[in-house]
Amino acid sequence: MSQHVEGIVYLVGAGPGDPGLLTLRAARLLASADTVVYDRLIHPEVLTHARPHARLVFVGKEGGGESVAQEEIHALLIAQARLGRSVVRLKGGDPFVFGRGGEEALALEAAGIAYEVVPGVSSGLAAPAAAAIPVTHRGVSGSVTFATAHRTGQAPDWAHLAGAETLVLFMAGRRLEEVTLALIAAGRAPSTPAAIVEAGTWAHQRVLEAPLASIAARAREEAVGSPALLVVGEVVSLRAQLPTLARTRPGVAGPEQFLKVEAGHE
Amino acid sequence: MSQHVEGIVYLVGAGPGDPGLLTLRAARLLASADTVVYDRLIHPEVLTHARPHARLVFVGKEGGGESVAQEEIHALLIAQARLGRSVVRLKGGDPFVFGRGGEEALALEAAGIAYEVVPGVSSGLAAPAAAAIPVTHRGVSGSVTFATAHRTGQAPDWAHLAGAETLVLFMAGRRLEEVTLALIAAGRAPSTPAAIVEAGTWAHQRVLEAPLASIAARAREEAVGSPALLVVGEVVSLRAQLPTLARTRPGVAGPEQFLKVEAGHE
Repeated sequence: MSQHVEGIVYLVGAGPGDPGLLTLRAARLLASADTVVYDRLIHPEVLTHARPHARLVFVGKEGGGESVAQEEIHALLIAQARLGRSVVRLKGGDPFVFGRGGEEALALEAAGIAYEVVPGVSSGLAAPAAAAIPVTHRGVSGSVTFATAHRTGQAPDWAHLAGAETLVLFMAGRRLEEVTLALIAAGRAPSTPAAIVEAGTWAHQRVLEAPLASIAARAREEAVGSPALLVVGEVVSLRAQLPTLARTRPGVAGPEQFLKVEAGHE
Repeated sequence: MSQHVEGIVYLVGAGPGDPGLLTLRAARLLASADTVVYDRLIHPEVLTHARPHARLVFVGKEGGGESVAQEEIHALLIAQARLGRSVVRLKGGDPFVFGRGGEEALALEAAGIAYEVVPGVSSGLAAPAAAAIPVTHRGVSGSVTFATAHRTGQAPDWAHLAGAETLVLFMAGRRLEEVTLALIAAGRAPSTPAAIVEAGTWAHQRVLEAPLASIAARAREEAVGSPALLVVGEVVSLRAQLPTLARTRPGVAGPEQFLKVEAGHE
């Protein structure tokens, strides 16, 4: 008598880069997964938690090429689960913060596949922290807004984003000029402290700090690649008061090959 | 010859409640810490990562009483580090999201104590996720704002918060009437989908969903305690399309005694 085994998909946040910021639950799920479907920007050390015989499937963008279409990822997750496999879908940061986790959950739901979501440490918090920027701080900022510069079909609401106490803008790399001009046009003071955190929590992390009006030029001069977050708000000026934290060397380097693939692309 | 040993303080995020959402680095630091200074809302299972002989110091609010003053916490961290101890300062969620981590970092910096910050999984993301609410979702919300209803010295900028695509309001429990009225007065549609997530990611998690105009009354009827997050925005309506996720039983219960202490207080 054959037994029908139900598969399951775990939509798992892998954190911002530093493999120490993986959650215990993510590590445990990786250790028992049959299939691991992972994005670009997952640290190689994170994948060492997977079983030696797990099937690892990379679906990220390679060296400026096309990424695997979202629908193909859905089809892959569904097909693997239907084979009775335990599937970990590993995403950078948190699955629900610009991670398209909601889309994958809806696709799994529609296909009748069991699934769970395992939150992760968001880059939106961890990258500023690794750059000695507390995104909220008593008397300085009582709110923080995460947004993305890379939005399909619709321009961001710049007037709203310009009014954010602390604004953390994801995927800001290639659009910095446009983004900073839009924020200033919408009323944000050109002198507002701003910072770019490139590869936050990775060993090759870089931080640039400049007023909002000149941060894009600074980033161009320094050839900032991706991933890069733009942080705008008075909290950025706390960095100068936290030199110990600003000096802390975060993360662990990946193999050089991996870093090359990562550099320069969104 | 005596050797001078330098102490160090790690400001560590313990995540939203579910002990599986602790990071690997937090677990490792706990396993080697001499002193652990912890808040309310830290799951007892998280503390089992500490060494048997570590000194555990509770500095949270007990049953409606006064919490330890922030300055006393600073003094405690500094004193323990000056004794040459490795100190883990364990905070719910992430240290820099309404966690006063910035204040503690500044105090340690001023005292010349070595310290690091270890980000955690923020309740602001994990609690909505555990309630089947993706805080961002393509075509629905391209940004998310974290704010707190409990602000010292200054009222929140309701006009700005009312314009957030997704608003996640921390410490909303006791001020729900005031908060929802303020958002509506500032222009947010009374019909906007809203949800309260009580004890997000804990086994006793509860979720209430109602339009913004009536969520406060619903919460009163259901005697919502703390911690509770208010989520406002169209993303809340995705819950209905994610019944599998909404059904997932998150977290692990703590001892009943612990849960009683927690219930009903901010």
